[in-house]
Amino acid sequence: MDNNKTQTDVLVIGSSAAGLVAALTGKRVYPDKKFTVTTQNPKTLIPCGIPYIFGSVGSSDNDILPADKMFEANDIEMVVDIAEEINLKEKNVRFKSGSVIAYDKLVIGTGSTPIHPGWLKGADLENVFKVPKNKTYLDEMHTKLTDAKNIVTIGAGFIGIEISDELRKAGKNVTMVEKLPNILGMAFDKDISERAESLLTERGVKILTGTLVSEITGNGKADGVLLDDGQKIEADAVILAMGYQPNSKLAGEAGLPVSNKGFIKVDDYMRTEDSSVFAVGDCAEKRDFFTRKPSPVMLASTACAEARIAGMNLFKLSAIKTFIGTISIFSTAIGETGFGVAGITETQAAAENFDFITGTFEGIDRHPGALEDTHKQFVKLVVGKEAGVILGGEVYGGLSAGELTNTLGIIVQNKMTLNSLLTAQFGTHPLLTASPAGYPLVKAAENAASKIMFTARK
Amino acid sequence: MDNNKTQTDVLVIGSSAAGLVAALTGKRVYPDKKFTVTTQNPKTLIPCGIPYIFGSVGSSDNDILPADKMFEANDIEMVVDIAEEINLKEKNVRFKSGSVIAYDKLVIGTGSTPIHPGWLKGADLENVFKVPKNKTYLDEMHTKLTDAKNIVTIGAGFIGIEISDELRKAGKNVTMVEKLPNILGMAFDKDISERAESLLTERGVKILTGTLVSEITGNGKADGVLLDDGQKIEADAVILAMGYQPNSKLAGEAGLPVSNKGFIKVDDYMRTEDSSVFAVGDCAEKRDFFTRKPSPVMLASTACAEARIAGMNLFKLSAIKTFIGTISIFSTAIGETGFGVAGITETQAAAENFDFITGTFEGIDRHPGALEDTHKQFVKLVVGKEAGVILGGEVYGGLSAGELTNTLGIIVQNKMTLNSLLTAQFGTHPLLTASPAGYPLVKAAENAASKIMFTARK
Repeated sequence: MDNNKTQTDVLVIGSSAAGLVAALTGKRVYPDKKFTVTTQNPKTLIPCGIPYIFGSVGSSDNDILPADKMFEANDIEMVVDIAEEINLKEKNVRFKSGSVIAYDKLVIGTGSTPIHPGWLKGADLENVFKVPKNKTYLDEMHTKLTDAKNIVTIGAGFIGIEISDELRKAGKNVTMVEKLPNILGMAFDKDISERAESLLTERGVKILTGTLVSEITGNGKADGVLLDDGQKIEADAVILAMGYQPNSKLAGEAGLPVSNKGFIKVDDYMRTEDSSVFAVGDCAEKRDFFTRKPSPVMLASTACAEARIAGMNLFKLSAIKTFIGTISIFSTAIGETGFGVAGITETQAAAENFDFITGTFEGIDRHPGALEDTHKQFVKLVVGKEAGVILGGEVYGGLSAGELTNTLGIIVQNKMTLNSLLTAQFGTHPLLTASPAGYPLVKAAENAASKIMFTARK
Repeated sequence: MDNNKTQTDVLVIGSSAAGLVAALTGKRVYPDKKFTVTTQNPKTLIPCGIPYIFGSVGSSDNDILPADKMFEANDIEMVVDIAEEINLKEKNVRFKSGSVIAYDKLVIGTGSTPIHPGWLKGADLENVFKVPKNKTYLDEMHTKLTDAKNIVTIGAGFIGIEISDELRKAGKNVTMVEKLPNILGMAFDKDISERAESLLTERGVKILTGTLVSEITGNGKADGVLLDDGQKIEADAVILAMGYQPNSKLAGEAGLPVSNKGFIKVDDYMRTEDSSVFAVGDCAEKRDFFTRKPSPVMLASTACAEARIAGMNLFKLSAIKTFIGTISIFSTAIGETGFGVAGITETQAAAENFDFITGTFEGIDRHPGALEDTHKQFVKLVVGKEAGVILGGEVYGGLSAGELTNTLGIIVQNKMTLNSLLTAQFGTHPLLTASPAGYPLVKAAENAASKIMFTARK
């Protein structure tokens, strides 16, 4: 055997959320197999923590996923190298160093890369940044942003708003420019987005929605952003937060089917067309839980769920350990306010032609309201009229909104109905939750139930 | 018709959580019916907030359930009077004032009263208090406690620990005496109770567990507590937090069946033996979700769930709007630490002879851990070996532990299995939850799954 050639049972390409969890799960379920994970960088970042290294977390060194230590503790080999070619027939992967690793099972967890707007003049100027999951890049960006006073963020999805809020906290003048009518417009309904907008505005972030950028100006280095309406915003730095694209080149070149959006095609066990090869995380195609349509959602949490399923099904398929479709459970926070969504929003329900109604409730997240950290709390449910299936919901509240969103996520995953919510039991406590008589998921369900009754009567 | 006689469609006795929610739900579903609620006190307290009036909430005036306003807004009549006799045959209730209200449907929500230990010498001394849901009593108690320096609490259930912690916060020397080996010993397993004990001890509450009280000493007024081992604790005031007993005398005297523990017998629609009469809340018998045995649990949240079911079934039964059994979802907080339990604990599972294993995980509730409000987080799951049904679990963490407990509650209510948890999706965010790779419900499920696999292999 060639010196450059080694053999493993399971080869995982990528050590971020998807690769890490696929390897750990696989090793837990198949402890006798040899697992090897390859990574481009010896240090893996916690992906969702990246916006916070510019403020709350302080530095990328505080945002490290201890993947190397977790691999070591679990007897998983870690190799720092860049995969360059997958040979499906010979079942091996060739790396940049020249080494070749043969596998019995392969897991592709190559992730995603920020979209580079090649069409936008000035996108390549100095001090125009993207937000990749790359420590070296982000550290350099962090240093350069230290001297920047005026920053423009283009794109107001989760990464855009989180990084803008953090940079504002760090004392910068931040302007966010978003082409959609609202920030977070892909994730939330207008009414929730507007609450996030007011909060960010109060915190000093300038927001321009429904606004197109025509050019990033500057001579060598960015000095401003020119808008479609002719207005110019001064900028010492520009951050492009326009979404991510799947890293599927490696898979595509190996001959694995890739969707027209660039996602690797997978089945419910996260297997590609080649049954020895799995794909998980941002690079793998997602289908929506309700519509089965391809979903563009990229979330570390979804990646981990997929990775667990791949890991469990590596050597033996289980008909009950399949991926049930992407629920899109998002949450974020602006200061002391949490926002979350699980399942289908009102906007999406209308676009998909569901026969639905909504139910809403606004209350408080402590009881009595005299408690000092009481926060307003709002829940909207989207409910299918037929059988009252809960299709999704949105949450706005204090910092427990993240876990409240997960309760909603489990409700959606179980296809629970209005009746099961109306008869459900929830624990309540003055210092932790809304009151038992004002628990928001039940009250929003009651509001929806009243509308269905009213409709039925007419 | 006699001047003292009036007629209503639905008469609800009691305006606390159970009565309030039964009336509001009933009126929502049957808007054309006349609803009348009778209450002993014009001002209803938020029951779970009571321990906090001695500290965080400041006064009982800040702990008022605006029942009167909610009734008014919903066209529900409120009458302040004390029900003295139910006549099932004539379908009316006679009140202390002499008035008689005839009903078509009756809902009994008479609640519970603190247990008075008649067997305990000194229990009737001055400055020996209980914790009833009675504003006048509590206001007087609050005033009298102002001058007390040393306070002994007898009983370390939820009310006992919450009031002790609050009085300690208010600067008192507080000693808790509990006969069980651990505080909160009816609700949590030993390992969780011990965490609560350390926290309370750190906060300055003295705890004596496995300790019996033989006498409250004092000449007219309490001056100390004498323990079984002869030790004497000085006390200017003593609080008896030894649990509550159902107020079922009214129902029992009317001839409605009452259990040997004093709870009014009800069916899955919350109907008593008389199908026109419902009973809800602390006074109604509860059956455990898994064992169907009578459950001693008294919770405002359970009361509200029962009240919703009674309200919806008042005039037309729905086969799918039934009470599925008590899940016992508790939560509480000590400082910045939340504790919760949903379903069956390890101790209960062993006592009931379930074939079970546990799965545990300890992590953190933010990611990365560099975030300043990061709190340790622990989850224990109790899992039936057969099919891996999640029987219950316990949670320890930051203030989002309350909603995390509710996620667990919904998991239990859906009889979800280990496999469905292992493949479930949860939303995660640095500022709101654990990391996607370390989400505690999934990690504890993995821990349990490994044990089942290991057991199966042996």
